[in-house]
Amino acid sequence: MTTEFDITQYQIAEQPYYQAQNNEITLYEAAYNARLPVMIKGPTGCGKSRFVEHMAWKLNKPLITVACNEDMTASDLVGRYLLDANGTRWVDGPLTLAARYGAICYLDEVVEARQDTTVVIHPLTDHRRTLPLDKKGELVVAHPDFQLVISYNPGYQSLMKDLKQSTKQRFAAMEFDYPLCSVETEIVSKEANISTDIADKLVRIAETARKLKGHGLDEGISTRLLVYAAALINGGIPARDACRMALVRPITDDKDIRDTLDHAIDAIFA
Amino acid sequence: MTTEFDITQYQIAEQPYYQAQNNEITLYEAAYNARLPVMIKGPTGCGKSRFVEHMAWKLNKPLITVACNEDMTASDLVGRYLLDANGTRWVDGPLTLAARYGAICYLDEVVEARQDTTVVIHPLTDHRRTLPLDKKGELVVAHPDFQLVISYNPGYQSLMKDLKQSTKQRFAAMEFDYPLCSVETEIVSKEANISTDIADKLVRIAETARKLKGHGLDEGISTRLLVYAAALINGGIPARDACRMALVRPITDDKDIRDTLDHAIDAIFA
Amino acid sequence: MTTEFDITQYQIAEQPYYQAQNNEITLYEAAYNARLPVMIKGPTGCGKSRFVEHMAWKLNKPLITVACNEDMTASDLVGRYLLDANGTRWVDGPLTLAARYGAICYLDEVVEARQDTTVVIHPLTDHRRTLPLDKKGELVVAHPDFQLVISYNPGYQSLMKDLKQSTKQRFAAMEFDYPLCSVETEIVSKEANISTDIADKLVRIAETARKLKGHGLDEGISTRLLVYAAALINGGIPARDACRMALVRPITDDKDIRDTLDHAIDAIFA
Amino acid sequence: MTTEFDITQYQIAEQPYYQAQNNEITLYEAAYNARLPVMIKGPTGCGKSRFVEHMAWKLNKPLITVACNEDMTASDLVGRYLLDANGTRWVDGPLTLAARYGAICYLDEVVEARQDTTVVIHPLTDHRRTLPLDKKGELVVAHPDFQLVISYNPGYQSLMKDLKQSTKQRFAAMEFDYPLCSVETEIVSKEANISTDIADKLVRIAETARKLKGHGLDEGISTRLLVYAAALINGGIPARDACRMALVRPITDDKDIRDTLDHAIDAIFA
Amino acid sequence: MTTEFDITQYQIAEQPYYQAQNNEITLYEAAYNARLPVMIKGPTGCGKSRFVEHMAWKLNKPLITVACNEDMTASDLVGRYLLDANGTRWVDGPLTLAARYGAICYLDEVVEARQDTTVVIHPLTDHRRTLPLDKKGELVVAHPDFQLVISYNPGYQSLMKDLKQSTKQRFAAMEFDYPLCSVETEIVSKEANISTDIADKLVRIAETARKLKGHGLDEGISTRLLVYAAALINGGIPARDACRMALVRPITDDKDIRDTLDHAIDAIFA
Amino acid sequence: MTTEFDITQYQIAEQPYYQAQNNEITLYEAAYNARLPVMIKGPTGCGKSRFVEHMAWKLNKPLITVACNEDMTASDLVGRYLLDANGTRWVDGPLTLAARYGAICYLDEVVEARQDTTVVIHPLTDHRRTLPLDKKGELVVAHPDFQLVISYNPGYQSLMKDLKQSTKQRFAAMEFDYPLCSVETEIVSKEANISTDIADKLVRIAETARKLKGHGLDEGISTRLLVYAAALINGGIPARDACRMALVRPITDDKDIRDTLDHAIDAIFA
Repeated sequence: MTTEFDITQYQIAEQPYYQAQNNEITLYEAAYNARLPVMIKGPTGCGKSRFVEHMAWKLNKPLITVACNEDMTASDLVGRYLLDANGTRWVDGPLTLAARYGAICYLDEVVEARQDTTVVIHPLTDHRRTLPLDKKGELVVAHPDFQLVISYNPGYQSLMKDLKQSTKQRFAAMEFDYPLCSVETEIVSKEANISTDIADKLVRIAETARKLKGHGLDEGISTRLLVYAAALINGGIPARDACRMALVRPITDDKDIRDTLDHAIDAIFA
Repeated sequence: MTTEFDITQYQIAEQPYYQAQNNEITLYEAAYNARLPVMIKGPTGCGKSRFVEHMAWKLNKPLITVACNEDMTASDLVGRYLLDANGTRWVDGPLTLAARYGAICYLDEVVEARQDTTVVIHPLTDHRRTLPLDKKGELVVAHPDFQLVISYNPGYQSLMKDLKQSTKQRFAAMEFDYPLCSVETEIVSKEANISTDIADKLVRIAETARKLKGHGLDEGISTRLLVYAAALINGGIPARDACRMALVRPITDDKDIRDTLDHAIDAIFA
Repeated sequence: MTTEFDITQYQIAEQPYYQAQNNEITLYEAAYNARLPVMIKGPTGCGKSRFVEHMAWKLNKPLITVACNEDMTASDLVGRYLLDANGTRWVDGPLTLAARYGAICYLDEVVEARQDTTVVIHPLTDHRRTLPLDKKGELVVAHPDFQLVISYNPGYQSLMKDLKQSTKQRFAAMEFDYPLCSVETEIVSKEANISTDIADKLVRIAETARKLKGHGLDEGISTRLLVYAAALINGGIPARDACRMALVRPITDDKDIRDTLDHAIDAIFA
Repeated sequence: MTTEFDITQYQIAEQPYYQAQNNEITLYEAAYNARLPVMIKGPTGCGKSRFVEHMAWKLNKPLITVACNEDMTASDLVGRYLLDANGTRWVDGPLTLAARYGAICYLDEVVEARQDTTVVIHPLTDHRRTLPLDKKGELVVAHPDFQLVISYNPGYQSLMKDLKQSTKQRFAAMEFDYPLCSVETEIVSKEANISTDIADKLVRIAETARKLKGHGLDEGISTRLLVYAAALINGGIPARDACRMALVRPITDDKDIRDTLDHAIDAIFA
Repeated sequence: MTTEFDITQYQIAEQPYYQAQNNEITLYEAAYNARLPVMIKGPTGCGKSRFVEHMAWKLNKPLITVACNEDMTASDLVGRYLLDANGTRWVDGPLTLAARYGAICYLDEVVEARQDTTVVIHPLTDHRRTLPLDKKGELVVAHPDFQLVISYNPGYQSLMKDLKQSTKQRFAAMEFDYPLCSVETEIVSKEANISTDIADKLVRIAETARKLKGHGLDEGISTRLLVYAAALINGGIPARDACRMALVRPITDDKDIRDTLDHAIDAIFA
Repeated sequence: MTTEFDITQYQIAEQPYYQAQNNEITLYEAAYNARLPVMIKGPTGCGKSRFVEHMAWKLNKPLITVACNEDMTASDLVGRYLLDANGTRWVDGPLTLAARYGAICYLDEVVEARQDTTVVIHPLTDHRRTLPLDKKGELVVAHPDFQLVISYNPGYQSLMKDLKQSTKQRFAAMEFDYPLCSVETEIVSKEANISTDIADKLVRIAETARKLKGHGLDEGISTRLLVYAAALINGGIPARDACRMALVRPITDDKDIRDTLDHAIDAIFA
């Protein structure tokens, strides 16, 4: 069929840096061993995607990631016919590739996808483990290694955008949050190659911001932004400027919130 | 015409595990013998799809399942022209295949499909038993073995998404619910290969959650999730962690509901 | 042109069973003789489609039925260009076929179609009796035998979905309703090959339900569902179970209404 | 270019029956002689289309009619590329054909078209008298005989569907209404070949209904429906039945209005 | 590339009649000399398009006019790939043609276009003067003669349809209004070849109507309609009938407004 | 693959004039050196695009600019298959080109794009620096020189159109505003080659208008419009006329605001 496809390009070549926070690695391994579909919940930038990548590396399975969006159709996941010199040719979508060749398929920010489009994953997530390609007239039986993983951020969940219960009830779920201060300091220090003193100060600024969530901020400052700030400091930018640029300006346009956070920065990097 | 299509791939090879709860098997057989279209109603994960699969196996008929969704067009059900080396070629959709070759066609979660798209099934569900392929200029007369089955979950039914009366009145209907405790315990124990003692405890947690339906939970815990929890326990995960991961985190993001269910778990697996 | 099309496949081979209720056959014949477009109004499942089929058989004209739906475009009615080995090839739609070859064209549930799409039928329904195929640059003059028939259910009519006056005023209209008790008993008995005693009991249940229309039920029980119930009884299902399955479960998800109807069934089949 | 197109098929071969009501023929001729675009306003079925046809016959110009609808795109009016054996081939739309070959182009029920789509007619309706085919890179200069005519029914005009002032101000306008009693009697008698006595009675029923416009009826009974009633009477249907079928049932589903009109019929055909 | 395109067909061959009202010609020339994009504002039919045509003739530059509408996509402006005998072939859109060959591109009624589609003109309206053809991978540098002109009618401007500030701030703007009485009389007299006496009377009717703008009329009577009335009078239609047909019926369906204007006509043409 | 693509056409050939206002150049360089994605915030016409162009020139990297709009699909950014003589051929979109060949990709006015479409940039903006071409089955690893820059105007930010937090938290952000008076005077004088006296007067008019922002004006007068006014003055237009045309008419249709600004112009150019 489409035998020329090279699944090995989706192998994670190098071990991704990941600092475990709890028993999440054990839980995931048990879920994978039972081939249960897994749902990863948690706020923006707390390390969900990194964790999945780490697990794919640890389990030595290819990882196919799909950034979901509202315009994504079922065909974008499953595949479509393309016109060829000899007529039409079927091209598997990422979900079909993962099912056929035994990859972990990671649907990132799945609530962004149209609620009703997500039903195409149903037959892959129950005892059938099949994917009907209606347009092709083929019934793909999932490779024994195949697993489906989805992520979503409950904070964004609205009446308009929520997973259906009939979808949710097909997953075992893991909750993520920002790491503990000490762990996060270590992560920032290691990732950005910066002193733990500066990393600790950055984490303390993040703590201040995270308390403002729901009080003028939609989300706190993510670990990723702390790494950005550290990178700018490493690049010679004064800490206060680096924090303004990497921690405050991206997340708010509100003058009061901006001033509050700027003062916190000045106090901590006094 | 499309004589190369292999309907046998839709035969159910192995007997699917199914534990009858009532006279549903007799009722379905009578409906099939009269070739009445059948509507299966019931909550998420109570075994509707499994039942249809079981009946297809028992009646020794191929089963073509379509997971319905809002983006599904009439062409997705009926078929379309594809471009070929020699021009266009007609490709039957799943509904047409089932009608032509005598399969049971199962439209899963039919309320998800656009209300008005569902009218294409009308001529197949009355005395005509025909399917006009307007774009092809062909009138398919259904194979004597053909039957149409649809499922839907009344709990999701809203003003925007309900079947039209003119559609509903074309089906005989069967109501499903979660199995009785004793039956469900047996199902979980058998499916997940776990002791009836643990299975019973899992069912008791489900009972607690199902009482919360409409009081903070949109749906109770399905039998499928109980089997997930058992699989994690079999994989070495402590029962409390397994229940949190498989029974609670997938179905709610509400802190209070989560705590209530976590306490129930701790009490039952004390 | 498209001379290969075989209109005879749309001839009604066998006389469809139809029990006249009034002077509807005479009225329809007069309308057909004057080639007036006809609108058939009435509730779900009262026999509108069967009547049209009967008339097509009686008048010995081919009948092309189109189940209308919201996604139906003017091209679905009129025709389109398809890609061929030698470029594009025009394929007549069902309305064009009927106009060209002299069939009765029956647009079932026409209110489902987009209000503005229905204007394509206008030039076929006045003195012009032509159908302009704009994309093909052809003006089809209707065959002398051609007639247009539409059905709709006034109960479904809403502000959003109603025919425009400029469309309505192109039709002579006939109103249908459920048949009288005695007539309906005969229909059910004959169609389902069941005793008039049982048929009479089924009709009495339907009478009860039809009184609930507008008081919890959107529609009453149709004659079709009575035939379903009789078929299940013929298949060995106890009458009470058959009625629950064929008459009640399809039309309501409301517990109170369901109980009311179940009690009526138990009283009548006591 | 597209020299093979045969404009003569759009010539009106036989004189259409038309009974002038006022100076409308003189006004139209003056407008045509100055090549002014013309807008015909008036209620459903009062003879707007018939008048345009009559004028096209009188002026001996081909008439290209387009029934406008909401799904009509600018390409449907102007033309598009179709795929051919030798690649794509441009096919003129009806507006382009009329402009190129000097026909009268009649856009029927123009308010149905998307308000903004109608701007494509602008360059044809001012001193430029050109039609830019953007997709083809051609600027069509209108044939000297070309004229644009539009119709619309002010009664349907809503905030959502009205012509833009910048479109309206490109037309000279003529107002139509139902004909006077005596004229209408003559029309019905002549068109349906029926006695003036019966025709007069039919017109009196129409008068009753037209007074109900805005008081339960959206529109009165059109002349066309009177002709339908006469045709049914000619076909042997009793006058009261014919009037119910042709005059009342098509225009209302309201029981009270229906009864009022039925009584009027019984009184007049007593 | 697309060297076969003949830009000279867009040259204005004959001097368009234009009566200057103020310093608008000088202002436009200065803007063109600095290649500033120009926005022409003013009510319907006050001569905006005529002015642009006049300037294109005066500056001896080709003029490519695009009548904007809501369905217009960026591709309609910029270009697209069409299928050819040898595969796909790029066809420049009108904006690209104007930029490539140095024409004035006039986007008429630009507010009709989707607000966000208009951003494609941005890179052509700042110091870059480039047009990226993303789908073709080409960056068109505008010809030195290229200029962009847009028109819009502030009266139609609504919250839903307004130009974005980031679009507006890319244009120098000129405001137009109906001409002074004496100027307008001269225009009507000259354009329609009618006596200044009649022209003056027509202008006085227009003055009356323009005072009703905002008091029952959306727009006043345009100069164009006055020319229409004069043409009908020239064609032998009595002045009062001509004015009713050309000045009143096109712009209002309101009985009171119509009567007011009809009385004004009778008074002036007493 | 698509080796024929010439990235050098996106090199900025000449140094764009840019007057630094603060430490923005140093901040941007540090961000680029760490390959952090950058978000540029600020009002219309304050020089955001110019700054990015300047930085691309200074860093000697090609710059691919995409004017975002609501109709932009993920395919417009990423690429698509086009039909060729030999079947389909993949064509990289601007984002893919930038990632593949190491350009700076500048998404201008990114909030205009559909919120959910923007998720396609996510994998390019975290540690992965990859772009999955799902339809092509290729995983593009970004060139070491690639950087992503987005601009947006917080003033336009509404509930409907805002970046998601999960997008925002992938960028370091820089805030821009209109330059200080003295700096802006220098810019206008230099760009438009006009005396600093006139430039100063123009800047003072802009100051007046910017105070009206939120009090009748949606935006102040941009630096770009000041340069337009200067260009018109250079072209011989009196200063008051030039200011009306370039500074006032483009930004408001409100009579009061217009008068206020006209008076300010008359006072300053007294």
